[in-house]
Amino acid sequence: MTTETDLLEYVDVSRIRRRLDELSEISSTTEGVTRLAYSEEENQAFEYLIDEIPDHYSIKEDSIGNLFATPDPDADRSVFTGSHLDTVFNGGHLDGALGVVTSLEAVNAIHRSDVDAAYPPTLAIFRAEESARFGYHTIGSRGALGMLETDTFAAADQNGVPLWRAMQDVGFQPTNLSEPSIELDRIAAFMEVHIEQGRVLEELENDVGIVSSIRAPVRYKCSVHGKYDHSGATPMGIRKDALTAASDMIVEIEAIAENGAEQGDMVGTVGTIESVDGSINQICGEVIFTIDLRSTNATHRDEIEEQIISEIENIADSREIGVETELIEETDPVHLDNGVVSCLESAAKRGGADHQIMPSGGGHDAMNFQLNNFPTGMLFVPSIDGVSHNPGEQTTSKGIEEATRTLAMGLAAYE
Amino acid sequence: MTTETDLLEYVDVSRIRRRLDELSEISSTTEGVTRLAYSEEENQAFEYLIDEIPDHYSIKEDSIGNLFATPDPDADRSVFTGSHLDTVFNGGHLDGALGVVTSLEAVNAIHRSDVDAAYPPTLAIFRAEESARFGYHTIGSRGALGMLETDTFAAADQNGVPLWRAMQDVGFQPTNLSEPSIELDRIAAFMEVHIEQGRVLEELENDVGIVSSIRAPVRYKCSVHGKYDHSGATPMGIRKDALTAASDMIVEIEAIAENGAEQGDMVGTVGTIESVDGSINQICGEVIFTIDLRSTNATHRDEIEEQIISEIENIADSREIGVETELIEETDPVHLDNGVVSCLESAAKRGGADHQIMPSGGGHDAMNFQLNNFPTGMLFVPSIDGVSHNPGEQTTSKGIEEATRTLAMGLAAYE
Repeated sequence: MTTETDLLEYVDVSRIRRRLDELSEISSTTEGVTRLAYSEEENQAFEYLIDEIPDHYSIKEDSIGNLFATPDPDADRSVFTGSHLDTVFNGGHLDGALGVVTSLEAVNAIHRSDVDAAYPPTLAIFRAEESARFGYHTIGSRGALGMLETDTFAAADQNGVPLWRAMQDVGFQPTNLSEPSIELDRIAAFMEVHIEQGRVLEELENDVGIVSSIRAPVRYKCSVHGKYDHSGATPMGIRKDALTAASDMIVEIEAIAENGAEQGDMVGTVGTIESVDGSINQICGEVIFTIDLRSTNATHRDEIEEQIISEIENIADSREIGVETELIEETDPVHLDNGVVSCLESAAKRGGADHQIMPSGGGHDAMNFQLNNFPTGMLFVPSIDGVSHNPGEQTTSKGIEEATRTLAMGLAAYE
Repeated sequence: MTTETDLLEYVDVSRIRRRLDELSEISSTTEGVTRLAYSEEENQAFEYLIDEIPDHYSIKEDSIGNLFATPDPDADRSVFTGSHLDTVFNGGHLDGALGVVTSLEAVNAIHRSDVDAAYPPTLAIFRAEESARFGYHTIGSRGALGMLETDTFAAADQNGVPLWRAMQDVGFQPTNLSEPSIELDRIAAFMEVHIEQGRVLEELENDVGIVSSIRAPVRYKCSVHGKYDHSGATPMGIRKDALTAASDMIVEIEAIAENGAEQGDMVGTVGTIESVDGSINQICGEVIFTIDLRSTNATHRDEIEEQIISEIENIADSREIGVETELIEETDPVHLDNGVVSCLESAAKRGGADHQIMPSGGGHDAMNFQLNNFPTGMLFVPSIDGVSHNPGEQTTSKGIEEATRTLAMGLAAYE
């Protein structure tokens, strides 16, 4: 009888690295990797992957270009596993591609070792996960699950090309937009490997992260309205300085988020600020900044959000200036399936991987499966120095190996 | 015998307003007034003024286009009075022009009333006071006093046209650049009327400001170096956030400047901030902001500057991030002449003007005369709502009248 140990013999990190390297050559830019959603380069990456999939696999493509490949098409139910092949502009070679290539390796290891899997796995490769081109994320996996809305197809890229036209340009004619493109009944579970995009694994010197939940953002755009005045001619006491007010707010947002992180899961970020028409010799009358708050706990996040908005308004009041806080996005956190998390944790332990349970800071294709109540899990590999969405994106070979082994064992063991 | 009261009969605010209105029509833009330094429009404004000067005046133009006009060319010594006719892009109708037109009114009132002036006044009209076109301020008055350096003539505008070429294009061929273009021995004193550019007179409900000193700026460019990280995936505790650090610094700069304003003359401003490559879903790794500190007291300013730079470095150290503070400008404050200030204050009192002694927040042509040890004074009229360098620039007719009367009396009484 074939054992789990036999399975691991078929995991080859050098093959994974070769495929990642070859995929990274498919790019519209020479610095980093650029394969935008529904671009010619994304198409070429799919063609490359099809060539790497063993000939006898059953391969299906849906109407929006997602690909599903399995050596066991007759199995009633299957654990789906995979990720995406598109990238941001000047991105790295791991975000998305790593998940596809490790899933192919794990699916094929199970197939070749002939280990007995309750739900023989299916490789899933999604289109258009990144929002870089059309402003919408996970278009492919949402389409596969019937979650796309008609409006999304009208979203245009920077050249004014709408999504539906871009799909047609690379050979797809979407049909029944609100219907799932895959047989949902076949999905027993979903598992995805992804690069962490943060520095937590590296700081704690672990090779594998097992994601328990996905932090979801609530986002604001804040506009602070003061008064433009001459910097030399306006005494301190009569100023209505929008920039010092905004700075005051940002310092308090950080303090509230840090305090919130001590009480529960919480990160809060002001990533951009603009001093509108600012100049060195003028008090700035208008400042715009953004807020991004995330937690795996929606209730905790709501509390922190309320504290922050209230503090922003207090600061504006005490400085006698105006402020508008505009909610621009609100997504609920997603808790991944305890059964899949336990299955992957147990696999990591058996394989001897240095691992930890952790939240994901951002959304991924996997999130959409959990949102549709399919038991879902994710594995992270370390981001070296936390670099993400950048040509300098890197991970460790140990991380790739341990994550692929854990995935293969998890896919085989899931019941 | 002619008295001071006779003199005041010749001051006509409606004539001043008419000239300001007619000058405001000379503009390359329809919104606000645009007469850039050494532009065709500045030339036209000079031609307009020459037409308004009585025929029997002696008019001299120097090699860089400054104009000096007096009905008493034979007087050994003269109090010079005037301002400039250029504007910023889309500026107002008062900055510069008001000083020229009120000086013409005052000089002519003295001449027509035949009041006995110890130093019969000369109207001075300077070129290129604003730095908007070439990045250098008070080019005309500095040239008149022999303060220009050769390098300045190579400074180019936004279209790459150097100053020397721009001067040639409107008909001037500068000679003996480092030599004064006027006879310095003739200058007994200098007086200038200008719009305040701040809100101090308006707040204290005064019609006239008598400037005692000119605040000069020390300016810094600060670059804060943190680390770009994923906003969702990076715990609060391991962040190196350049934007929250910069905000912390800006709040402290404001506090130190406010404290400094309680101990002496001080204004401090951060007018611009840039979150370099900032995005809503990323911790910002690089922030640049500017500092502009001004005081009439150089020693006090140096102390505040030292406190601020030290506090910026402390914040960077405690947050374990980098910061560079680059000194980009340092000018000394200028104290105007006590004799001229007293002369103008006394004139304001005799004329019954609501007035106050105050600092100037910015430099003006007058500053260059004091820097060359010519006894110098300035009068301010209120800026409505502090608006300056903007089409909305306005003042009160009462301010114009009281300032012109005070100037005329001051010019006549100065000994």
